[in-house]
Amino acid sequence: MNYLLTLAYDGTEYCGFQVQPNGRSVAAAFQDGLEAVLGARPDIKGCSRTDAGVHALGFALNFHADCKIPPFKLPLALNSRLPRDIRVLSARLVPEDFHARYAAHTKTYLYRILNSAIDSPFDARYYHRIPGRLDTDRMAKAAAGFVGRHDFLALCASGSSAAAHGDTVRTITDCTVTRKGDRVEILVTADGYLYNMVRILAGTLCEVGAGRMDPGAIGGILASRDRGRAGPTLPAKGLFLHHVSYDLPEEETRG
Amino acid sequence: MNYLLTLAYDGTEYCGFQVQPNGRSVAAAFQDGLEAVLGARPDIKGCSRTDAGVHALGFALNFHADCKIPPFKLPLALNSRLPRDIRVLSARLVPEDFHARYAAHTKTYLYRILNSAIDSPFDARYYHRIPGRLDTDRMAKAAAGFVGRHDFLALCASGSSAAAHGDTVRTITDCTVTRKGDRVEILVTADGYLYNMVRILAGTLCEVGAGRMDPGAIGGILASRDRGRAGPTLPAKGLFLHHVSYDLPEEETRG
Repeated sequence: MNYLLTLAYDGTEYCGFQVQPNGRSVAAAFQDGLEAVLGARPDIKGCSRTDAGVHALGFALNFHADCKIPPFKLPLALNSRLPRDIRVLSARLVPEDFHARYAAHTKTYLYRILNSAIDSPFDARYYHRIPGRLDTDRMAKAAAGFVGRHDFLALCASGSSAAAHGDTVRTITDCTVTRKGDRVEILVTADGYLYNMVRILAGTLCEVGAGRMDPGAIGGILASRDRGRAGPTLPAKGLFLHHVSYDLPEEETRG
Repeated sequence: MNYLLTLAYDGTEYCGFQVQPNGRSVAAAFQDGLEAVLGARPDIKGCSRTDAGVHALGFALNFHADCKIPPFKLPLALNSRLPRDIRVLSARLVPEDFHARYAAHTKTYLYRILNSAIDSPFDARYYHRIPGRLDTDRMAKAAAGFVGRHDFLALCASGSSAAAHGDTVRTITDCTVTRKGDRVEILVTADGYLYNMVRILAGTLCEVGAGRMDPGAIGGILASRDRGRAGPTLPAKGLFLHHVSYDLPEEETRG
């Protein structure tokens, strides 16, 4: 049986999703919980790697197991064995050949900014704070410039294997900027991402919002394929994997 | 000069606002910061005591000081000396005889409930989780029953000095229940509160929401003056002092 699970996690204490030689990964913590529940430690396939400190509201992963627990009982069973900063939100069966990474149509990321002179005692782990006023109308205009099929090399951190292979064309289907009080949210949906792409995209939009870049400059930045033309890489703590979209058959029986 | 400051704090690590013989209080932590900035340690008057673990979004306090720093510069100066879980949001001058507790017309408290079978990895410190579905329409009806001038002894924890003095009549001017997804918020505004009153009020509303009490039962519970008739005291972690209302003159000069 192939199980697809959705997870939320606070990435602050982790080196990212993927198992790493050094550092505690979300995947390893999840496998420990899985082993406690199933008595087995199957390989897991995550929808994305996510960097150290990045959070998730709707991370997807799958694994194969001969499991007597019906899928709808898995979240509670696993949550009793997982650290409090990782929660399983849902579980279902999927076709045997389903792979959480390759089956993903699009992934949506959220970047959260606290646009305030004063930090919040409650949200400091989950927002990047920018004290100077950001003009979100300008940011929204610039965001539209990222939408479409483009070479995103200008938004790719060095050391990317995709860049080394010349594989830097992606399609962003949606990129929006919204403000609620002093909270600014950037939501990006794409068929794939380059290394640090969302954090650089968010950093570029903030340059526009702060008035240091023009909203019309995005096309030129992308065409330049020059990382130096884009904005800074914003910190991991503001970044959330929001959700992943799959084309899946109606859910199978609940028993 | 009499300074009125507004603070937000995460109360998780504190024994409440008020200085206590045992335990770290928000007031003591604040006074340490004040002393570092002013070189003096004035008495501070808080708008409320707030219990251990209770949070604040808009706590008000005042103190008298001969301070060369203009009020508008105090928040940044103090925030650089305060622990990260306490932030000064604003500061202004008020008349010499102003007292943050006695001058308060009304105080508004917020109680936050996560109505979900699964805990949130992000909000566990700031929401009380109730797994079973709460009917917020029923809760809103019951909430209306608390509004008005009533004897609230039935919502008062034992050991209250107000109760010992027979001083248990208060006026709730507003009490609302709203739901956004799996988040339920109870907002209460009153001219004063008895010991644990909001947490017992919230616990009573949750009994109604869970179907164990009738929305029409509130009047009878209050009339009984019997703590045993009301619902349980919900945990401190869901409770926030939301804001305090004062009648104040227009703010004085900013220099």
